[in-house]
Amino acid sequence: MTRYVKKVSDKAGLPPGTAVHIGERKPGRVRVRVLDYDRDQATEHEIHDIREVFRFRDTPSVSWISIDGLHDIRLIEQLGAHFGFHPLFLEDIVNTASRPKIEDFESYVFIVFKMLSEDRYDGRKIVSEHVSLIFSERYVISFQEREGDMFDSIRQRIISAAGSLRKKGADYLAYRLMDAVVDNYFALIESIGEQVDDTEDLLLNRPEKDTIHVIHRLKSENLFLHKFIFPLRDILSYLERGESDLVKHETGVYFRDVYDHTIQIMDNIETLRDVLSGMMDIYLSSMSNRMNEVMKVLTVFASLFIPLTFLVGVYGMNFDYMPELHWRWAYPVLWIVMVGMGVCLLVFFRKKKWL
Amino acid sequence: MTRYVKKVSDKAGLPPGTAVHIGERKPGRVRVRVLDYDRDQATEHEIHDIREVFRFRDTPSVSWISIDGLHDIRLIEQLGAHFGFHPLFLEDIVNTASRPKIEDFESYVFIVFKMLSEDRYDGRKIVSEHVSLIFSERYVISFQEREGDMFDSIRQRIISAAGSLRKKGADYLAYRLMDAVVDNYFALIESIGEQVDDTEDLLLNRPEKDTIHVIHRLKSENLFLHKFIFPLRDILSYLERGESDLVKHETGVYFRDVYDHTIQIMDNIETLRDVLSGMMDIYLSSMSNRMNEVMKVLTVFASLFIPLTFLVGVYGMNFDYMPELHWRWAYPVLWIVMVGMGVCLLVFFRKKKWL
Amino acid sequence: MTRYVKKVSDKAGLPPGTAVHIGERKPGRVRVRVLDYDRDQATEHEIHDIREVFRFRDTPSVSWISIDGLHDIRLIEQLGAHFGFHPLFLEDIVNTASRPKIEDFESYVFIVFKMLSEDRYDGRKIVSEHVSLIFSERYVISFQEREGDMFDSIRQRIISAAGSLRKKGADYLAYRLMDAVVDNYFALIESIGEQVDDTEDLLLNRPEKDTIHVIHRLKSENLFLHKFIFPLRDILSYLERGESDLVKHETGVYFRDVYDHTIQIMDNIETLRDVLSGMMDIYLSSMSNRMNEVMKVLTVFASLFIPLTFLVGVYGMNFDYMPELHWRWAYPVLWIVMVGMGVCLLVFFRKKKWL
Amino acid sequence: MTRYVKKVSDKAGLPPGTAVHIGERKPGRVRVRVLDYDRDQATEHEIHDIREVFRFRDTPSVSWISIDGLHDIRLIEQLGAHFGFHPLFLEDIVNTASRPKIEDFESYVFIVFKMLSEDRYDGRKIVSEHVSLIFSERYVISFQEREGDMFDSIRQRIISAAGSLRKKGADYLAYRLMDAVVDNYFALIESIGEQVDDTEDLLLNRPEKDTIHVIHRLKSENLFLHKFIFPLRDILSYLERGESDLVKHETGVYFRDVYDHTIQIMDNIETLRDVLSGMMDIYLSSMSNRMNEVMKVLTVFASLFIPLTFLVGVYGMNFDYMPELHWRWAYPVLWIVMVGMGVCLLVFFRKKKWL
Amino acid sequence: MTRYVKKVSDKAGLPPGTAVHIGERKPGRVRVRVLDYDRDQATEHEIHDIREVFRFRDTPSVSWISIDGLHDIRLIEQLGAHFGFHPLFLEDIVNTASRPKIEDFESYVFIVFKMLSEDRYDGRKIVSEHVSLIFSERYVISFQEREGDMFDSIRQRIISAAGSLRKKGADYLAYRLMDAVVDNYFALIESIGEQVDDTEDLLLNRPEKDTIHVIHRLKSENLFLHKFIFPLRDILSYLERGESDLVKHETGVYFRDVYDHTIQIMDNIETLRDVLSGMMDIYLSSMSNRMNEVMKVLTVFASLFIPLTFLVGVYGMNFDYMPELHWRWAYPVLWIVMVGMGVCLLVFFRKKKWL
Repeated sequence: MTRYVKKVSDKAGLPPGTAVHIGERKPGRVRVRVLDYDRDQATEHEIHDIREVFRFRDTPSVSWISIDGLHDIRLIEQLGAHFGFHPLFLEDIVNTASRPKIEDFESYVFIVFKMLSEDRYDGRKIVSEHVSLIFSERYVISFQEREGDMFDSIRQRIISAAGSLRKKGADYLAYRLMDAVVDNYFALIESIGEQVDDTEDLLLNRPEKDTIHVIHRLKSENLFLHKFIFPLRDILSYLERGESDLVKHETGVYFRDVYDHTIQIMDNIETLRDVLSGMMDIYLSSMSNRMNEVMKVLTVFASLFIPLTFLVGVYGMNFDYMPELHWRWAYPVLWIVMVGMGVCLLVFFRKKKWL
Repeated sequence: MTRYVKKVSDKAGLPPGTAVHIGERKPGRVRVRVLDYDRDQATEHEIHDIREVFRFRDTPSVSWISIDGLHDIRLIEQLGAHFGFHPLFLEDIVNTASRPKIEDFESYVFIVFKMLSEDRYDGRKIVSEHVSLIFSERYVISFQEREGDMFDSIRQRIISAAGSLRKKGADYLAYRLMDAVVDNYFALIESIGEQVDDTEDLLLNRPEKDTIHVIHRLKSENLFLHKFIFPLRDILSYLERGESDLVKHETGVYFRDVYDHTIQIMDNIETLRDVLSGMMDIYLSSMSNRMNEVMKVLTVFASLFIPLTFLVGVYGMNFDYMPELHWRWAYPVLWIVMVGMGVCLLVFFRKKKWL
Repeated sequence: MTRYVKKVSDKAGLPPGTAVHIGERKPGRVRVRVLDYDRDQATEHEIHDIREVFRFRDTPSVSWISIDGLHDIRLIEQLGAHFGFHPLFLEDIVNTASRPKIEDFESYVFIVFKMLSEDRYDGRKIVSEHVSLIFSERYVISFQEREGDMFDSIRQRIISAAGSLRKKGADYLAYRLMDAVVDNYFALIESIGEQVDDTEDLLLNRPEKDTIHVIHRLKSENLFLHKFIFPLRDILSYLERGESDLVKHETGVYFRDVYDHTIQIMDNIETLRDVLSGMMDIYLSSMSNRMNEVMKVLTVFASLFIPLTFLVGVYGMNFDYMPELHWRWAYPVLWIVMVGMGVCLLVFFRKKKWL
Repeated sequence: MTRYVKKVSDKAGLPPGTAVHIGERKPGRVRVRVLDYDRDQATEHEIHDIREVFRFRDTPSVSWISIDGLHDIRLIEQLGAHFGFHPLFLEDIVNTASRPKIEDFESYVFIVFKMLSEDRYDGRKIVSEHVSLIFSERYVISFQEREGDMFDSIRQRIISAAGSLRKKGADYLAYRLMDAVVDNYFALIESIGEQVDDTEDLLLNRPEKDTIHVIHRLKSENLFLHKFIFPLRDILSYLERGESDLVKHETGVYFRDVYDHTIQIMDNIETLRDVLSGMMDIYLSSMSNRMNEVMKVLTVFASLFIPLTFLVGVYGMNFDYMPELHWRWAYPVLWIVMVGMGVCLLVFFRKKKWL
Repeated sequence: MTRYVKKVSDKAGLPPGTAVHIGERKPGRVRVRVLDYDRDQATEHEIHDIREVFRFRDTPSVSWISIDGLHDIRLIEQLGAHFGFHPLFLEDIVNTASRPKIEDFESYVFIVFKMLSEDRYDGRKIVSEHVSLIFSERYVISFQEREGDMFDSIRQRIISAAGSLRKKGADYLAYRLMDAVVDNYFALIESIGEQVDDTEDLLLNRPEKDTIHVIHRLKSENLFLHKFIFPLRDILSYLERGESDLVKHETGVYFRDVYDHTIQIMDNIETLRDVLSGMMDIYLSSMSNRMNEVMKVLTVFASLFIPLTFLVGVYGMNFDYMPELHWRWAYPVLWIVMVGMGVCLLVFFRKKKWL
């Protein structure tokens, strides 16, 4: 699979609204659960036939319908048909390559975003999971690629009536789900931040040939985060400004808080991008430095011995008439001359700071 | 022909509205077809005289008039005159260098865009085809450079009454045609994405001298896509916002969907641009690395043997008085000294990590 | 004269509205012509005394007053005074360094822009000519630095009553004049585009030392075009939006067409800028490549022969006790050793792909 | 701790409004003081039980409640509950990683920003302190990480009735506190500016290997300032525009003044960023220059002596028939030839400006 | 003093509105003059006691009060108190580090900008002078750091009743003063432009080691101009749009003209920035080229003689059994072989274009 561009072209040519599941086919069946609660009670239902879900649409209590698994197109189509969702959205729910977005139909709000986490096995890989939320006045439907643990604590708090979740409406639940996801982004950006720190230390102290590959990987990861988090700003800004009637005024301030967190993450992404660019420059200069050092060693050796080699070559010649050859002190004098030359050159190189 | 700038200057000096066909002259005649349909029936007409088309303008059914071939200016002028199109648009239809744009005359909407595909023979070349659409309440006229297969499946679906095409109006047909083109962009960007991946692997493992040319080609292709797809955003945004009376409210959501796809493609183009820039840096650093390696080999060889050569030169001299020459063990001792020096230097280079 | 910044500071300190001719003083007198036309007739007048022009101001027919030559300040001041133009504009007309701009006084519109063409003698130099237009309901006044041939075909079409020029007003004539100029920009950008193509081919196949100077020159020319064409966007956008009462609604669509052409040219300028930047990178990498090659040759030669030279040096020593010297097969054995070493090194270099 | 990304992920999963103190735990208890003043008097109260503070909420005089220390969550929660602050804000007060921001609730304005100062011990490190302000018509509450001296002079001026502080309202006090912080930013940017100057001098005169690390550090610091000061612009712009009812019209002009200072600092940050980028280029070019110099020395030495060494090697050969060996003046003639060659080469190198 | 960041932090901690003179203390006393004029007369008054100025505030004639010297804070405070200026502005007048800005109080407009000129002694240094203007309906007050000659010609024209100055109001005088300053910017940018041209010629023909320092200096100067001229755009745009009641409609067109000049200067600054960036690239490539040349010389010399040296070394060996040594023609044959090798290598290098 392409690393930078997700493959969606298999869908090309199909009519719009055709829900095609893009992404890895997860094994097993789709798990459907309904958590129905109001101020006084909360009951959880494990659903085996999607039609059992339909009755929760109009109950006065808040119902959180969670669908874990996107490969059962039929199930999602039935759900969509009963709740009256636009067929184009079904397409976006199952197409894991689609971009974070928000659509506000007056009777429901449709949100697509990404859950990002480090790979369980290879901490250096970022795994993205496609999440969709549909919320109305009385229900929230969440679609995930697989059963996740990010939403579990919220589920527990509703059941145990901890905090204010039970007292508030479906919009507040939607906020809490998005908040949980954004909170997790912090962990990711911190992890990249730490790796950037480590790489910078390495770079300043003992840069290696592979350091540039690490910088490149970190840049790509940062780019990856940027790509998925950036569109979230518009989504949260829309919710925060209270443009949807389904978001109560008092919930607006909470969405604003998540919005601020997103801005903070974007700030960090910007900072890391700048730092990584600077590190690239330092890497290139460290390479130049190293080359300089290699060249200096070569130059010092060659410049020191090449003239001397010439000199001894002179007295290796076999001319019949070379008076020096017969002088008594010629040999020791030559040594003195040669050592003198060597010392002069060493002093010269020292002055140039090459030694 | 220029690769980066399409030639249009032959037109300079002609009065406005002069339709001049810019582009390769395609052989053969222009094919004109009319597909007339409503909820109950669909009939296809092969047109041999352009005047046969005129009667479809005012039929209550939806008529899709498709003109495959732009070189018969006369035909297009006749059509334009009868339907009452502004002469400037005829110019844009046949000038294949003109930029994607939208013009909303109250009684009809005029759209120019590009069909992009990989060259049939050289998969690494992107071919652009100039497409114009004019749609009104009851008809859609499509102009293409040559008979294409991108619109064939839509034609089939209308004839076979599959999907909802027959139930909807001309604006929906216009949407389907644009959607088909945008879907095809995905294939292109994925193809570039795959090539980027391959090149990146190559770059990280065994960069070659030509890798930079591949990077340059991919950058140019990416630039090419950007140039043609970017203006499409404004076109689709205009249609999606419902600013034209000819786009029904319910079709707006479909145009919004294509709009989202365009944004997604632009995102990918941005990502690839950044990745390709990073790869350029890595290429340059890999070149430096390679140079470093070459220099190290040279330095190690030269620094090792130059001093030794000097030493053996010393004892090749022909001075009469060189006591060492007559010592019994001088020769083996010199060997020991020389091997010792060599080992010292090797240890020194090893410590510097040059070996 | 400065290449990048046009000299205007001689004007500093003069009161505003002082018309000072900035630019080369063109020889000869200023040529003034009036072309007076309506639907039925067109007459051309060669004017020798500027006062003859004044009567055309209020005729019901359209009058195109063309002033070819800007150095007769007195003439322009008389004209301005009679027609009631603001003195600041006279300054802009004759100051050839002033920037493209539009000023909409209710009774007349004042436009400054640049005619760009390749130098007649040195095709690689771009020559800019300062053009001003003033148009009202019944007249258009054009000011040029010298008699140009760009407007001649329009003049001919009016006289020969070809096309729709005679049927339309002064705003349409203004449009045609601007359109002629913008059409000419295409020729320029195509010429640069072709040179970029050639340079790219050169760069990919056999880069030379001077290639970077060509890239630099093309970048400067592209910058030059950008500087003069960019402000035209705002001018045409103003005219196209119909913000001036002097532009009729039906002429708006024509101005929009020129506006689109300007955008298309700006697109091309952007593309070329990106391509030229990329070419700079390739040039630098090609330099590195060449250096690598030089270094490899040096390294191969040096590493091959330096050890061998040491070896033959050893047996050139004059020690009394060197048993090898007296062995029967020492000399041929040494040759075998040396050839063996050479082959080993060649294999090593081959494996490193240096050969 | 990460250098570029502040750690906040420990909070992930907690419900919103949970005040968790992010940052170093400062030793000792939280100091709470109230400075109550009006035109005629000013009294300072050291508070030991937070409940003593509550009565100041509704006094007609202005009360400045300052909380020095953020680790006593309980205390801040009590305060928030009594004054009726939104729980989300309590979170922002104690989370020292949160971004500068402003929230305008009609009855109070909540502002978060950063106090930046050079580290007391290591002048090259910038220390940031998290400050929050809440002001209403009659009170200002300031939250700081530790007792700071930046606000002391303001406290003294109120007590001593110096200046106009006592005559104005809570909004003016808020302005003075922010002004004190922004004034301090100037000191920081000047300190960086001076270091940039020093580094530039070093770079132009005698660049060292470590200079690039200094440039990198200064870039990071500049980035750090930018990150914290940039959001302040929006905050001050909001206050200056008079969008909050709690800011009196006459105080607006003061906020505008601080706003201008912030713009001025941002200008300086921009300038330094550009200068530092330019310095990076100069550093790289100085490295190249140095390499050039090393290579020239090597080339001069090698090119000078290698041909000579060859020549003396020729006459060191032991062929039986080498007539030159027996010539009377061969040796001195050879010396003349060799000196001549050397001189020629030196002249050649001199002409190339390598010496 | 810092070069890039002007020192203002000495003011930190002082209450707002405290006028502290930031900048060099100019020797001598402050010169105050009043030029009072209307359509019929103009009288100039040298003022020795600031109180003499006060009576000009309310005269029906236009009064130009010019203060040359900013170090007499007391004088400026007295003036401000009598005319009723906001104390914050006094601060901006004397703080020469403050940024160009405009403040429109309904009864007066306050403008701060910079007079830039080349240093009288070192033409390569740009000197900035801090200028403030306050104008109302009947008076203009100008504050300068020292008596300048930029405004002298305007003074002369008023006295000699030349031009239209005497016929117009205070807003027109303010325009003329700003126009004089902006006109002077042209001289500066042209001077930089000329230096850029010279440096480019140098770079293309015979780049030197110091060229990069010149480029760096020109970049810094350009940055410097940008920093001071950029904010002027907003100031002039404000005045030109007629948002202030103190600017008459007919003066608006004049401010628009200065605004256009500012845009033109900004255009030039942009162009120069791009050209200078390109020159940096060329410099770096010229360094690489030079290195290439050095390396080629080394490689040619070394590759030519190292194999030959080996060869002569072979026949310098002292083996007892070396048949070649005793051949009659061995020596001349060896010479032929060596010359042949040399020629081959020279041909090889020639083909590689290294010679």
